[in-house]
Amino acid sequence: MARIDGDRLLADLRALRAFGATGTGVVRPSLSEVDMRSRHWLVERLAAAGLDAGIDGLGTVYGRARKTRDVLLLGSHTDTQPTGGWLDGALGVIYGLEVARALGADPATRDLGVDVASWIDEEGTYRGWIGSLGFVGQLPDEWVETATDASGKRFTEALRDAGLAGRPRFTLDPSRYRGYVEAHIEQGPWLEEEGKRIGVVTGIVGIRQMRIRAVGQQNHAGTTPMARRRDAGRALVALAHAIHTAFPDHVGPRTVWTIGWMRFEPGAPSIVPGVATMNLQFRDVDEAILDRLEALARELVAKAGGDGVEVSIESPAATAGAMMDETLRAHLERAAEAHAPGAWMPMPSGAGHDAQVLARRLPSAMLFIPSIGGISHSFDENTGDDDIVLGCQVLADAVVSILGA
Amino acid sequence: MARIDGDRLLADLRALRAFGATGTGVVRPSLSEVDMRSRHWLVERLAAAGLDAGIDGLGTVYGRARKTRDVLLLGSHTDTQPTGGWLDGALGVIYGLEVARALGADPATRDLGVDVASWIDEEGTYRGWIGSLGFVGQLPDEWVETATDASGKRFTEALRDAGLAGRPRFTLDPSRYRGYVEAHIEQGPWLEEEGKRIGVVTGIVGIRQMRIRAVGQQNHAGTTPMARRRDAGRALVALAHAIHTAFPDHVGPRTVWTIGWMRFEPGAPSIVPGVATMNLQFRDVDEAILDRLEALARELVAKAGGDGVEVSIESPAATAGAMMDETLRAHLERAAEAHAPGAWMPMPSGAGHDAQVLARRLPSAMLFIPSIGGISHSFDENTGDDDIVLGCQVLADAVVSILGA
Repeated sequence: MARIDGDRLLADLRALRAFGATGTGVVRPSLSEVDMRSRHWLVERLAAAGLDAGIDGLGTVYGRARKTRDVLLLGSHTDTQPTGGWLDGALGVIYGLEVARALGADPATRDLGVDVASWIDEEGTYRGWIGSLGFVGQLPDEWVETATDASGKRFTEALRDAGLAGRPRFTLDPSRYRGYVEAHIEQGPWLEEEGKRIGVVTGIVGIRQMRIRAVGQQNHAGTTPMARRRDAGRALVALAHAIHTAFPDHVGPRTVWTIGWMRFEPGAPSIVPGVATMNLQFRDVDEAILDRLEALARELVAKAGGDGVEVSIESPAATAGAMMDETLRAHLERAAEAHAPGAWMPMPSGAGHDAQVLARRLPSAMLFIPSIGGISHSFDENTGDDDIVLGCQVLADAVVSILGA
Repeated sequence: MARIDGDRLLADLRALRAFGATGTGVVRPSLSEVDMRSRHWLVERLAAAGLDAGIDGLGTVYGRARKTRDVLLLGSHTDTQPTGGWLDGALGVIYGLEVARALGADPATRDLGVDVASWIDEEGTYRGWIGSLGFVGQLPDEWVETATDASGKRFTEALRDAGLAGRPRFTLDPSRYRGYVEAHIEQGPWLEEEGKRIGVVTGIVGIRQMRIRAVGQQNHAGTTPMARRRDAGRALVALAHAIHTAFPDHVGPRTVWTIGWMRFEPGAPSIVPGVATMNLQFRDVDEAILDRLEALARELVAKAGGDGVEVSIESPAATAGAMMDETLRAHLERAAEAHAPGAWMPMPSGAGHDAQVLARRLPSAMLFIPSIGGISHSFDENTGDDDIVLGCQVLADAVVSILGA
C-alpha cells in the first residue's frame, strides 16, 4: 500500500505556512503577492511529484496525473481568511501532494492516477469558491468581472497583476474522474469532544441567509418624546430577541443560527436610529429544517415593527448543502477503521467547502481531522502532528482502495 | 420699546445660511473653512450694530456693548451638526444681533447693554460646549489639547489653521452681567402639538449615558454548536430588549431613553460575535428619576450575560441639567403673553444647550420657538417666518424689561 512520509508531509505544511506566516497564524488572501509566491512554490512541489502542474487563468493551482481516465481528484484551497489559521484548506492540498508522492514511490500504486487542486478564493477575498465554480462550469462571467475585495480592487485586476490574465482555465472533464475527495480540519469541537481522530463527512450543511432591515424615522434623542418615536433600532432589537427566543423550539440537534452583524444608522448616542439592519443566517444538512426556520423567520419579521417602523427582508439567499457520495464514504470509513479503530465517526460539515461545489458534478467525499479547542478562522487554529499524519495515511489508503489497486 | 425689524432679521438668518448651505440644510462644522468665513461675517454684522466685536482664542464670536455693568448676555451657537438645519443655534445668535440693533435704534433703549456671543463648538465637532465652558472658566486645558474631530484632526490644529492660536479668550466677568438669555428652536414637537408659538424653558434635562460592552468568544458560525457559543451579540440584544421592556415602568412623563448605536465585532455574517457594544442614554429634568433609571440599568446589566459572556458598563457619564432663573423666566413669560396671549407655555428642554453651562455662573433663561414636525438635526428642520419674527420681538421686549428700561 501507499506509505505516506509523515515528516515530509509536516515539512511541506510548514514550508507553505511560511508564505504569509503572522504570529501563529497566516495572512495569505487570494492572489496577494505572498499567495502568488506560494502558488508558484506549490507548482514546483507538484511537478516534483511527477504531475503536470500549473496555475490556471483564475489562479487555481493544479497538478495532473499522466492518465486520461480513472483519476481521483484531491484538493482543497491554500488561500486564507484575513487572519487565518495555518492548516485550514492548506491541509487538504498538501495531503494531495503527499498522497501523489506516496503512490508514485511504490511500484504497486505507481500507475494510479491522482490529480491535485488548490482552488482559488475559497475564502471569498473576492467572491468565494471561484476556483471550484470555474472548474465545474458554474462561474458566471459577470461574477468574475464584478468581484472585488474589501478595498474595491477587482478580481480581474488582481489576475492581471499576477500575470494570469488570459491563461486557460482548468475545467472538468467528467470522463476523466472517479470522484473528488477533500480533506480539511474539522473547524469545530465535535471530534475532540467525542475523543475521535477522524471524521468522515456525511453531508455539508445548507445555508440560508437574509438581511433584515427596519426603517423608522431618524430624530433627536433629547427632544423626541417616546410616544412619537419611530425607532428602527428598538424594533430590530425586539425582532432579534424574538428570533433567539423562538428558534430553539424549531431547530434540529445540529442546527446553528447566527445574527453576526447589526448596524444602526446614523449610529450616534443622541440620535434615534432611523434605519437598523442585521444579518440572520442558519445552517443544517436537512433542507426541511431550513424551510421550517425560514418560514418562522418570515413570520417573525411580518409581526415585527409597527408604530411607524417597517421591517422587511432583503436579499434572502440559500446555498444548497450537499450529501457526500456513499461509495467514497465507505472507502474512507474502512481506511479510518484500519488506522484508527473505533476512533473515527461520521459527521456533517457545518462549514461550507469546495466539495459541495464539486459534488454537483462528481461523486465527492470529505475527511476531517480534529481542530484543537474547535478553533478556526483564527491565528489560534491548530491540530496535533500525530492527527495530521494519521489523516493523510487514512486518505492515502482510501485513495488506493477507491482506485482499486 | 424696542421694535425689531422682521425683514432685516430674516435677511440676516438667510445670509448666514448661505455659509455652508446644502440643499435645505447647512453643513458648517466648527472651525471649518466655511464656518470661519461665517464668523468673520458675523463680526462685521455685530460691529455694524455698534458692538466691540471679534473672535476669541477658542473661536467664539463676541460682540460687547460699551458698558461695564448691567449687561445682559444673549447668544447661542452658529456651528452645525454634520448635516444640520439652518436655524438651530444660528437663530439665537441672529436674535441677539437684531435685539442689539433694535435697542440701539431707539433713544429710550440706546443705553441698555447687550453682549452677543456665538459659542464655539456647541455641536461637538471636537468636544462640545467648548466656547461656553471656556467662557465660564470650566474648560480644562487637557480637553483643549486632546479634542479631535472624527477624522482625528486636533482642535488646536484647527485653531492654528484658522489663525486663532494664541488669541485671548472671551471670559466671564460676573460683575458685568445681569444674566444670560438664549433663544433656540424647540427641536421637538410639543409647541406645534399644543398649538403654541413660544416656549419658556423651565429647566434643561440632565443626561446619563453609558457604554455597555459584552465580551464572549468570536467563533465560526457554521461549526460552533449553539450550546458552546459565547455569543456577545445575542447577550447584548437580550439586554437591550430588557431595557426597552423594563424602562417604561420606571420613567417620568417626559423621560426619554435611547439606544442610539450598537456594534457587533467582527460583524460578519458567518462569525459569532466575540464583542458587542451599545450606548444607552436617558434624559430627564428630575435627577431623582435619572438616579432610579441608572440603578435599574445597572441591575439589568448585572443580570445580563452568563454562558461565558461578560457584560459590563464602561465610561458612565452624567451631564447635570440646569433649572432656569425664575426672575428671567418671568420677564420672558410677560413678554410672551403680551405678544402671543395664551399661545405660549412653560416647558423643559430635552436637548442640551450652552445655557446649562452658563447657568453654573449666571442667572440664565431660554426661549423656544416651534420646530415644524418636531424635526431637528436634519436638513428638513424649519420654522415658519412669522414664528421666527415673533420670537425675536418677545426676546427684545423681555430684554428691555430685564434691563429695567
